Amino acid sequence: WSAPVIDGVMMLEREYRFKNFKLALDFANEIAHLAEEEGHHPAILLEWGKVKISWWTHAIRGLHKNDFIMAVKTDSFYKS
Amino acid sequence: WSAPVIDGVMMLEREYRFKNFKLALDFANEIAHLAEEEGHHPAILLEWGKVKISWWTHAIRGLHKNDFIMAVKTDSFYKS
Repeated sequence: WSAPVIDGVMMLEREYRFKNFKLALDFANEIAHLAEEEGHHPAILLEWGKVKISWWTHAIRGLHKNDFIMAVKTDSFYKS
Repeated sequence: WSAPVIDGVMMLEREYRFKNFKLALDFANEIAHLAEEEGHHPAILLEWGKVKISWWTHAIRGLHKNDFIMAVKTDSFYKS
C-alpha cells in the first residue's frame, strides 16, 4: 500500500494485478460487497487485468484507523 | 462526455450519479459485462453514488470510432 495525497486527502492505495478482465471484475465485486457489509466505501478502479483500491475516511478527509483495517481485509480477498 | 488527455492518451470520459453505492455497483457491472461481450474494456471508477467510465483504444493510445459507439451504448444502460 502507498499513501498518496490526492486533492489534499491522504489515502491508502494499492493496485492488484489479474490475468484477465473477469478475474479483476470478480475481485472488484468482492471488495464492493465487503464495503457494503462494513458501511465504508473505497474508490474501486477496474481496468483490464487490474484493480486499484483507495481507502480514506470522507468525514475527516483523511485516514482513520478503520481504513488500515479495511486495507488488511482487502489484501485477504486477494490472497484467498 | 468529455475528452481529456491523460498521460498523452485522449479518452472519452463521463461520470454518472446514483442514489447509493448499490445502484452505482449495479451500473458498473452492467458496463463490465458489456465490455466483455464487446471485447473492449474501459476504465470503470466506482465510488459511493458515482461511476466514472473512460473509453479509449489501447492499441492506438487514443480514440477510435468504436470508443464513441461504446460511449453511446454506456449511456443507454444509464437511461434504462
